[in-house]
Amino acid sequence: MFRIGMLTSGGDCQALNAAMRGVVKGLCSKRNDVEIYGFQDGYKGLIYSNFEMLTAKDFSGILTMGGTILGTSRQPFKLMRVPGPDGIDKVEAMKHTYHKLNLNCLVVLGGNGTHKTANLLREEGLNVITLPKTIDNDLWGTDMTFGFQSAVDIATEAIDRIHTTATSHSRVFIVEVMGHKVGWVTLHAGIAGGADIILLPEIPYDVDNVVRAIKSRTEAGKHFTIIAVAEGAITKEDAALPKKKLKEKQEKKGYPSVAYELAEKIQNRMDQEVRITVPGHTQRGGSPCPYDRVLATRLGAAAADLILKEDYGYMVGIKNGNIRKVPLGEVAGKLKMVDPKADIIKEAKIVGISFGDE
Amino acid sequence: MFRIGMLTSGGDCQALNAAMRGVVKGLCSKRNDVEIYGFQDGYKGLIYSNFEMLTAKDFSGILTMGGTILGTSRQPFKLMRVPGPDGIDKVEAMKHTYHKLNLNCLVVLGGNGTHKTANLLREEGLNVITLPKTIDNDLWGTDMTFGFQSAVDIATEAIDRIHTTATSHSRVFIVEVMGHKVGWVTLHAGIAGGADIILLPEIPYDVDNVVRAIKSRTEAGKHFTIIAVAEGAITKEDAALPKKKLKEKQEKKGYPSVAYELAEKIQNRMDQEVRITVPGHTQRGGSPCPYDRVLATRLGAAAADLILKEDYGYMVGIKNGNIRKVPLGEVAGKLKMVDPKADIIKEAKIVGISFGDE
Amino acid sequence: MFRIGMLTSGGDCQALNAAMRGVVKGLCSKRNDVEIYGFQDGYKGLIYSNFEMLTAKDFSGILTMGGTILGTSRQPFKLMRVPGPDGIDKVEAMKHTYHKLNLNCLVVLGGNGTHKTANLLREEGLNVITLPKTIDNDLWGTDMTFGFQSAVDIATEAIDRIHTTATSHSRVFIVEVMGHKVGWVTLHAGIAGGADIILLPEIPYDVDNVVRAIKSRTEAGKHFTIIAVAEGAITKEDAALPKKKLKEKQEKKGYPSVAYELAEKIQNRMDQEVRITVPGHTQRGGSPCPYDRVLATRLGAAAADLILKEDYGYMVGIKNGNIRKVPLGEVAGKLKMVDPKADIIKEAKIVGISFGDE
Amino acid sequence: MFRIGMLTSGGDCQALNAAMRGVVKGLCSKRNDVEIYGFQDGYKGLIYSNFEMLTAKDFSGILTMGGTILGTSRQPFKLMRVPGPDGIDKVEAMKHTYHKLNLNCLVVLGGNGTHKTANLLREEGLNVITLPKTIDNDLWGTDMTFGFQSAVDIATEAIDRIHTTATSHSRVFIVEVMGHKVGWVTLHAGIAGGADIILLPEIPYDVDNVVRAIKSRTEAGKHFTIIAVAEGAITKEDAALPKKKLKEKQEKKGYPSVAYELAEKIQNRMDQEVRITVPGHTQRGGSPCPYDRVLATRLGAAAADLILKEDYGYMVGIKNGNIRKVPLGEVAGKLKMVDPKADIIKEAKIVGISFGDE
Repeated sequence: MFRIGMLTSGGDCQALNAAMRGVVKGLCSKRNDVEIYGFQDGYKGLIYSNFEMLTAKDFSGILTMGGTILGTSRQPFKLMRVPGPDGIDKVEAMKHTYHKLNLNCLVVLGGNGTHKTANLLREEGLNVITLPKTIDNDLWGTDMTFGFQSAVDIATEAIDRIHTTATSHSRVFIVEVMGHKVGWVTLHAGIAGGADIILLPEIPYDVDNVVRAIKSRTEAGKHFTIIAVAEGAITKEDAALPKKKLKEKQEKKGYPSVAYELAEKIQNRMDQEVRITVPGHTQRGGSPCPYDRVLATRLGAAAADLILKEDYGYMVGIKNGNIRKVPLGEVAGKLKMVDPKADIIKEAKIVGISFGDE
Repeated sequence: MFRIGMLTSGGDCQALNAAMRGVVKGLCSKRNDVEIYGFQDGYKGLIYSNFEMLTAKDFSGILTMGGTILGTSRQPFKLMRVPGPDGIDKVEAMKHTYHKLNLNCLVVLGGNGTHKTANLLREEGLNVITLPKTIDNDLWGTDMTFGFQSAVDIATEAIDRIHTTATSHSRVFIVEVMGHKVGWVTLHAGIAGGADIILLPEIPYDVDNVVRAIKSRTEAGKHFTIIAVAEGAITKEDAALPKKKLKEKQEKKGYPSVAYELAEKIQNRMDQEVRITVPGHTQRGGSPCPYDRVLATRLGAAAADLILKEDYGYMVGIKNGNIRKVPLGEVAGKLKMVDPKADIIKEAKIVGISFGDE
Repeated sequence: MFRIGMLTSGGDCQALNAAMRGVVKGLCSKRNDVEIYGFQDGYKGLIYSNFEMLTAKDFSGILTMGGTILGTSRQPFKLMRVPGPDGIDKVEAMKHTYHKLNLNCLVVLGGNGTHKTANLLREEGLNVITLPKTIDNDLWGTDMTFGFQSAVDIATEAIDRIHTTATSHSRVFIVEVMGHKVGWVTLHAGIAGGADIILLPEIPYDVDNVVRAIKSRTEAGKHFTIIAVAEGAITKEDAALPKKKLKEKQEKKGYPSVAYELAEKIQNRMDQEVRITVPGHTQRGGSPCPYDRVLATRLGAAAADLILKEDYGYMVGIKNGNIRKVPLGEVAGKLKMVDPKADIIKEAKIVGISFGDE
Repeated sequence: MFRIGMLTSGGDCQALNAAMRGVVKGLCSKRNDVEIYGFQDGYKGLIYSNFEMLTAKDFSGILTMGGTILGTSRQPFKLMRVPGPDGIDKVEAMKHTYHKLNLNCLVVLGGNGTHKTANLLREEGLNVITLPKTIDNDLWGTDMTFGFQSAVDIATEAIDRIHTTATSHSRVFIVEVMGHKVGWVTLHAGIAGGADIILLPEIPYDVDNVVRAIKSRTEAGKHFTIIAVAEGAITKEDAALPKKKLKEKQEKKGYPSVAYELAEKIQNRMDQEVRITVPGHTQRGGSPCPYDRVLATRLGAAAADLILKEDYGYMVGIKNGNIRKVPLGEVAGKLKMVDPKADIIKEAKIVGISFGDE
């Protein structure tokens, strides 16, 4: 018997099911003694030994389904070593489940936090293979994560729809885009949606520059402006604060989210109606786009290939169009951010997009 | 010469361009002496005599375009008789523009407020034909307004996407749907999206009933609940307040919108993670759905027919599948609301949807 | 025990699952002794007693799923009384299965052919309730069938996409739209997609008129023409033939479908590049549109209501926005066609659409 | 004055307008003396000096529009040196127009044939910059062409819709995907749509292998099979023929397209209903997907950058995520095909997809 544990952890995103289907199809087309243990709700299922025995059939027909058939939950890495209210040592519990079930390998699909824990389990001696799942595209070691392009599509669609409203009225529209601490989704959706101003965590902005950009559009006869702002965008002023001070400041202000603060600041500086749109969790939902399905299928197939070779301890990523394995120890704890000097930023500026930095 | 003035007023919505295309195509295929005066930004253009001379060509290829090529603005009816800061008597100014241009007819596309002013202009002796435009579907005298089905499609898509996220995590999700003071969009999108609880202005709800419905789902083994709440939804308690008191109360509370208040109330009553999604203005944007394009084209064509017959003073609506003319005097000032006793509500309850009223 | 048999028959379409979900949710929310027997692949499952016992859970989460979880097949009515190669009397076999399982009622979802058989079973003494399923919208007794609006959406999308290509090149494009012997989908998708010429079975056309319409567009400076042709469209000449002669003629010609014949005829008459697009079965596939989901849910709920009242022998339809029951004997064997004199045709002509009839 | 000629040539595709917008925005944000000469219908406009003077405003708001605002036509390279029926030497005529208008540079958007002519014009001394436009993704020198991902999205959507029909009935479905002589779109859409069999020009197939794959699915309890076949797919037998013989053979057979031939062959070998879907030109139409909009905008911006530096003679492509210039002499006349040994083929086989080659 070849026993594979599988779990999806962290925020859900598109193509999780597609990726798991890829792994299982890959395993079952080569061996007929595969047993799949699907842990429920991420690491929680591994800790508390909640699982279902699944067969290839359970992974059939799920290529286009959003969400994850295993369920997911957030289990912060920093609490992994801390016993919960039930007194359970989570790491030991996970190891115990793994060994009790006599697993050959644990397949983990997740983002940044997930990878820290996956690497910890690897260090504890478990055989682990991971797949890079997140709409944020902030995982180190891979050019692309699945979920990202689907989120870009949805955020772009929101900007498109706002565009028709914006051109009919004379207004400033702010669309707040997901992406956690990085600006990948905002950058791509902003360019794709024809946003006039794009604000990213990686390029701290100055509200005065934003106002200047709006005014210069008005002077050019354009009566509306669309701003794509990343949920993690930050002003130059705030970026200069020590982390702790910044957190205190943000909590004191109590805006529902960054777009509301930005809207208020713009309205304080100019006589202009400002409207806010926050697509929110819709950006992680729905059927994965074809790009993500191909990516997830390829990564899943490559993961199956590694597992069949019993070559463990890697995240399966993509680099320059080719799938490659990246040692988990190299991935964990790193963040892949937008480089403010990247060509795509330069090109965006060439077509007149302002990043609020000058 | 046959001179037609045209304007779009109020919030923008889908199929405004489709409807205007219908009118203009209808007119120009029958007469070759038609002149179109497109007033900019709604009644404002009529007041200040801002217009463009347009030809049939300007209305070609706009069937699928969102927004309005004429621009729009909100000009509250109650301020129509009140001179603006520039001292201008708006009604007189509109009449002046109309007569100065020697218009045969004014075509007005708009919602409730717009129709009050349109009827006023009719009473003042102008030839007026109107088309029922609003995502809210709250216009009296027509079964359906264009924009409505497109808004339902977008709100449903938002609920669909939330569904995949909701099934992956164990949460309560609130999706706030547009619709002003009525619940049409929420009702239809809620049913179409498979919402478990639907809260409408027309059926005041009790938070305890909402909480009960969530708990009964949990007991039935369903770990998530989706609530579609209309932006105008109201609790039984608030519905009992005098209007003035209610307004004071709402201003004091200061939630960004109704979903935030509902979320807080649920969280105060049960230990359950609640997430909010507000698709907002995206619901009025983008390309009209095929249903709305057919409706708008039909209404536009029928308007052209009336204009060619010089039969003025009507809104062109649809009743039981057939286009019909409704005297403007009958339309203005009335609101078409969801009937709490309608079959569709009964049917929704049959499939287990809670309206929070029992 | 309350035993319900259920089957879907004929070509598949969108919202079959949504409708069944409505029925089952409606039944199970009122009674807790319901047993669902899902027959596989339509009447075939009833004939050969192939079924699965299903629970409410099997119908959960299928609201947005295309296709049918029961499978379907075409079982021509005219062969129902004819024993198959296995010598089985199909009607007796169906009755036998029904009585053997001690069913209280059989719920049948299908189109025209399906309804003939359903009515036959009713005449044979079975309790039958049906739901009107077909993209063709050709069922007598209901204003609307589910599947129709979804098919319109897909066909319209095809025309939209052809539009951008057509405007870039100078060509005639023919889009062939499904609809069997009637023109409902073509008519609505044609108007919604901005087709210049619409050819329907109900309005026989003359190719010379089609060519004339193309030329008059060219003269007006429009370099492309889009024709939406129903798969069942027919020329005046062919419409005048006796049915048998017509069939012989069509078989002799051997075009893959009607669009190919039309293209050839146009090219024979003018020097114009003609391109063909046949979206085909895609028009019956994919997730149902929100309109169809609401319709199917309402019809399903109303069916459940009738079943709970043990009021059998009806198709559940919709008339002027309200659900109503229609005796099966009135429905079977009739076709609902587009009325060439309907307002929608008149309005389409007002905006300049040619039907090739004049 | 800085005079830029611009034209789009060959089959239209998505994001042509987005790319031109990128170029023009890039030029006009840096210089205020730019004049744009838009040639109509590709090289034809350059030959016959048909052009419009365009301004930055003409390229505003076209980011999301399908097609090309300049129009396009196919002007085969092999006929460039051959005088037309009007006796005109096309190459000289193009040079004449270029010099007469005193152009600084000619910007050409097109695919393979277009690039041969563009390179010819470069050799004749014109300043040329090109952008890689084609849904086929077969241009040498760039990882990706714009139009490709949009076409993949549409073809995938078609397969998705067929999927729901296929699972409801028991059938073989063939979806014929565009791509000219290469298999890029089919490969990606096939994987994304979950096709069971993918047939590409680059991997000649054997019908017996295809039939074997279908049967092995049936044996595994799967009652339907979806085949994605490239319009240029070829059997091993035909691939072995000399080109001339092959052409003769294909003309003799006279199938409307490759899917029809494949269907017949399968039906000759097994008792199985086979249905065909040919999305056709819809694959080049409609609004570009966000991926293509970002790519086209980036390429357009980089083209503007080169033009401003007066660094001519290149196609602007993308390699490993970065924009780069490729000498036109290297690009012209080469075809980028799918490598049968590429990782993506291997991965597709791992998940069980058959390419009919073994």
